[in-house]
Amino acid sequence: MASEVYEKGKLAKKASYRLTGATTEEKNQALKAIAKQLIEDQEEIRLANKKDISMARRHLSDSMIDRLMLDESRIKAMSQAVTDIVQLDDPIHRVLQTIKKENGLIIQQKSVPLGVIGMIYEARPNVTIDAAALALKTNNCVILRGSKTALHSNRALVQSVHRALQSTELPRDSVLLIEDTSREAAKELFHLQSFLDVLIPRGGKGLIDTVVREASVPVIETGAGNCHMYIDEFAELEMAKKVVLNAKKQRPSVCNSIESLLIHTRWLEKYGGEFLAYIENEGIEIVGDQYMKDFLPHMTLATEEDYHNEFLCLKMSVKTVATVEEAITHIRQYGTKHSEAIITENNSRAATFLNHVDAAAVYHNASTRFTDGFEFGFGAEIGISTQKMHVRGPMGLKALTSSKYFIEGNGQIRE
Amino acid sequence: MASEVYEKGKLAKKASYRLTGATTEEKNQALKAIAKQLIEDQEEIRLANKKDISMARRHLSDSMIDRLMLDESRIKAMSQAVTDIVQLDDPIHRVLQTIKKENGLIIQQKSVPLGVIGMIYEARPNVTIDAAALALKTNNCVILRGSKTALHSNRALVQSVHRALQSTELPRDSVLLIEDTSREAAKELFHLQSFLDVLIPRGGKGLIDTVVREASVPVIETGAGNCHMYIDEFAELEMAKKVVLNAKKQRPSVCNSIESLLIHTRWLEKYGGEFLAYIENEGIEIVGDQYMKDFLPHMTLATEEDYHNEFLCLKMSVKTVATVEEAITHIRQYGTKHSEAIITENNSRAATFLNHVDAAAVYHNASTRFTDGFEFGFGAEIGISTQKMHVRGPMGLKALTSSKYFIEGNGQIRE
Repeated sequence: MASEVYEKGKLAKKASYRLTGATTEEKNQALKAIAKQLIEDQEEIRLANKKDISMARRHLSDSMIDRLMLDESRIKAMSQAVTDIVQLDDPIHRVLQTIKKENGLIIQQKSVPLGVIGMIYEARPNVTIDAAALALKTNNCVILRGSKTALHSNRALVQSVHRALQSTELPRDSVLLIEDTSREAAKELFHLQSFLDVLIPRGGKGLIDTVVREASVPVIETGAGNCHMYIDEFAELEMAKKVVLNAKKQRPSVCNSIESLLIHTRWLEKYGGEFLAYIENEGIEIVGDQYMKDFLPHMTLATEEDYHNEFLCLKMSVKTVATVEEAITHIRQYGTKHSEAIITENNSRAATFLNHVDAAAVYHNASTRFTDGFEFGFGAEIGISTQKMHVRGPMGLKALTSSKYFIEGNGQIRE
Repeated sequence: MASEVYEKGKLAKKASYRLTGATTEEKNQALKAIAKQLIEDQEEIRLANKKDISMARRHLSDSMIDRLMLDESRIKAMSQAVTDIVQLDDPIHRVLQTIKKENGLIIQQKSVPLGVIGMIYEARPNVTIDAAALALKTNNCVILRGSKTALHSNRALVQSVHRALQSTELPRDSVLLIEDTSREAAKELFHLQSFLDVLIPRGGKGLIDTVVREASVPVIETGAGNCHMYIDEFAELEMAKKVVLNAKKQRPSVCNSIESLLIHTRWLEKYGGEFLAYIENEGIEIVGDQYMKDFLPHMTLATEEDYHNEFLCLKMSVKTVATVEEAITHIRQYGTKHSEAIITENNSRAATFLNHVDAAAVYHNASTRFTDGFEFGFGAEIGISTQKMHVRGPMGLKALTSSKYFIEGNGQIRE
């Protein structure tokens, strides 16, 4: 007997043939139906979510429970997010390029769906609806593989999506949930290239590294953000205070917050006392190198591990550097190619940093918190890509598309 | 002791830091120096190539020997190809997108190099120079891993490149050859993500499939072309004759030639006799289904294997289909998502075919032989991508680039 993963892969592939031809109108009607159905089914969804929550209380932290939890306002927000996607321009069948050849051939490159998207993620049920809506908007089928912890919630959500789809022109199998949450099922998904066109992991570094290492299906690597801010010798004190605080404290649990500060020796000598006291007073714990000790005698020294760590809380590693080159070298070693910033009034220093730091987004005199699909004006976000192929940085709908050359002739042959 | 692959990976990564900042002028001078040096070193290169040829005579076919062989005119052609690349616009540091935010932030997406490219290929020494030149033009380092059969030739070619680079501003390690041609070395390359940004296999289906299946480094899948041409019920006989002949016979050994013909039943009834006789007279061997037997009684029936086969010679499988949908279904099962064509005077049939066949290039009334970077006007070609991520279809210099968001502010923070 074929496994659940294989069977659903096959169903999704078949559904994708129909979905390829879905019109803007059909897609938007399906999205509207989903948004409506989620509200209608909210009692059922909350009941299922309560089951997950009560089981999760035994082993999950409060913050993880919070991410798992669905209440009335969150279901409403999920539904609203789907409605928002209706408003976005259709990203499919856009003409990206037109080449007219002397022999009369017309070559048009157009955007097309990827086909079947696999999404593998942790205990955040909102990803279920998010992924389904973004996939439908781009004429893609999606196979969802959430975590065991959110299984009841995900099942209720996908049932709601199926109910909605049944009243529309789009196939029910456009959105499928893998209920087998075993490692074997995940592994099978990693190698399902006959049905899957891409696999997108969303979650912690462990999950992403496993998928990148093991999958033979093409992967879009998202997420891990060990982001740095480098305070150059020529940084203004007030700007440094304001921007560092924002990049660290405004929402410490997300990937575009900074985890590490690099400070030019001469700047530290001049402003270290005031700056570090300010940061500490804001409730941020600092682990740093020996130089910092002069200003913060009580401070714990940073370990090698600390410089690699994505704290995701109000803790930050700090290191002194003697040159911008040393900052760049440090970031090469410890960074995750997400978002990196320099604070300086010296434009040539800024240019060196921006050109030589290899990351999806590089900032001069601004907070790294702007690395975000909505902030960039994409109207949607599937995640932040930290890879270099296909898409890099915040991923809007375009990240879920491919392209195809359409060539019209009247009998042209190659000489 | 670290392996050759590891050591060269490390050297390439280091060289890539310097290469990232290379100017248009520096790159073009390096390319000119390489073009010149190849001519100067041609005796040495031919001598090395003769060693490869004499060893290869024992186990390679004549056509493979021909691909391996370097004579004066081929070395001249290689050198000219490098010179041609000098003329192309610099694909790096182009502004792809500018986003101005109300808070004054300026977000610019610019093209940047991928970093280090791994190229794994078979006994075609011209790929060595091609890859080196295209990588340099895009500020990328390249690690070359050719086949054992071409080792002497590749070594002489890379030595010539190194000699040229020594007279320029660019690091010698921008182009490195892995001389260890063992399977173990290849496997190590598959998992060298700490130094390699992408791996591009060029060669037969076996090589490509292995790389796709095994590599954890991101791969650009190129090449295999089991291309079809579908002659619809409403195809003009003369156009079908001309276009099929060109797509099959003009250069049968390449990936954009057709391997299989699908013929609508009613068209076959009407024109089958004349058409098939014409094709046979042109020296093309046909293997087909039972319907074809009426016209070609001596014909061998096609096997399942034949429909999967990329013949790359003057042999072609033919199959009768009753509808355009049946043609599409056949292509889904046997195609390699490369180039697929329909011959018809009916535009609605053409639209169905073009929209529903999932391939890099889809043609209406033209030969599939146009799927080519030079024909598309890209001025260069790294290969034909048959994958959907990053780049699809003929790959020009852009395929070897990534992008990066440069964000300029004056103290902006996220509210």
